[in-house]
Amino acid sequence: MSEKDIDQMRSRFAREAMALMERTGEEVTRTRLAAEFKIARARIEAVFPEESDLLEAITAEWFAPKIAVMDEVMASGLPPRRKMYEFFARRFVLLRQNFEEDPATFRLYVEMGERYFEYAQSYIDLGDHYLCELIAEAQADGHLTGMDVDFARSVINQMVLCYIQPYLIAMIGERLSEDKLAHIVDAIFDGLDAKDGGAGGSSQLQGV
Amino acid sequence: MSEKDIDQMRSRFAREAMALMERTGEEVTRTRLAAEFKIARARIEAVFPEESDLLEAITAEWFAPKIAVMDEVMASGLPPRRKMYEFFARRFVLLRQNFEEDPATFRLYVEMGERYFEYAQSYIDLGDHYLCELIAEAQADGHLTGMDVDFARSVINQMVLCYIQPYLIAMIGERLSEDKLAHIVDAIFDGLDAKDGGAGGSSQLQGV
Repeated sequence: MSEKDIDQMRSRFAREAMALMERTGEEVTRTRLAAEFKIARARIEAVFPEESDLLEAITAEWFAPKIAVMDEVMASGLPPRRKMYEFFARRFVLLRQNFEEDPATFRLYVEMGERYFEYAQSYIDLGDHYLCELIAEAQADGHLTGMDVDFARSVINQMVLCYIQPYLIAMIGERLSEDKLAHIVDAIFDGLDAKDGGAGGSSQLQGV
Repeated sequence: MSEKDIDQMRSRFAREAMALMERTGEEVTRTRLAAEFKIARARIEAVFPEESDLLEAITAEWFAPKIAVMDEVMASGLPPRRKMYEFFARRFVLLRQNFEEDPATFRLYVEMGERYFEYAQSYIDLGDHYLCELIAEAQADGHLTGMDVDFARSVINQMVLCYIQPYLIAMIGERLSEDKLAHIVDAIFDGLDAKDGGAGGSSQLQGV
């Protein structure tokens, strides 16, 4: 088989594995996949030499639509504030839809994500890379003044965590809304910068 | 036994149950508690008529120091911005310390908190009640302009979630810091208000 054939089969088998997981509510193995879809074990092993290769392919399939919306937003000509909002909001809407369509399967993916965290790392890194670009665009536009980009990335990820973390969307989803997220992004653009605003009380005058 | 005696024993038995959980890494039952500490079953049942009464008492003991720091901050004469920061920061420092001292037991409490959510509800409600007071004080000081108090409470809880949610402190604790929390509280005071800042793109000019 050519590399391209293998790529196509990897993606197809991963989608079949996901359909099986949705049906059974359980994690899937190569053995189970081969038995369920009457695929020769040798063929499965040509595509997934190790059990971990199947998990990696499932992770890739799960992230693909989330990456697609991020790519779309990054390629848009939106101004920085709108762009950062859409960057988080479109993924949130997708995750919420995934959750609402099938809460049990969504929770299974959340559990798998906790167990096989290493496969998700490259997607999380891509999201962080994009967020750094958005921060640079916001700074060029006069926002997030003076902030170190990595520090800003970390603080912003924390402020919007419940809109991007699947576990939290499953847990407190009914309290989340696009309107609240828009207010948070506006607070990032209008209130977050490098200067000490006084909350932490490092200035003598503001101490207890 | 008088009501006061029972209260004292409830608190003492709950602390003994917690010490047992720390040692064994497992949830504790009335039977186990009676056996371990050679307490007569009748005495345990006088204090905890139902299994759930033991869980409720453990929850109360676990929350007591967190309530104490909240009470302390609420009683302070700090200006609103500093007060809101301390309100979240002192609890965060306490939770982080609990986690660092004994990560396994901390995770056990997190799991129990998810399973017996109803016992924690009154403490969460108290935190929300205090936060509403802080919002009113901030508004009297010219911040969070025009915001509905419940909407502001919900958005602020979301913005600082990783500093108050024990599960998140266990999961991403190494990325959390007082400095980042201070920047978030400053963004709340300097950038969060009722007006549409444009992130959500509801205004025609800011659409795609």
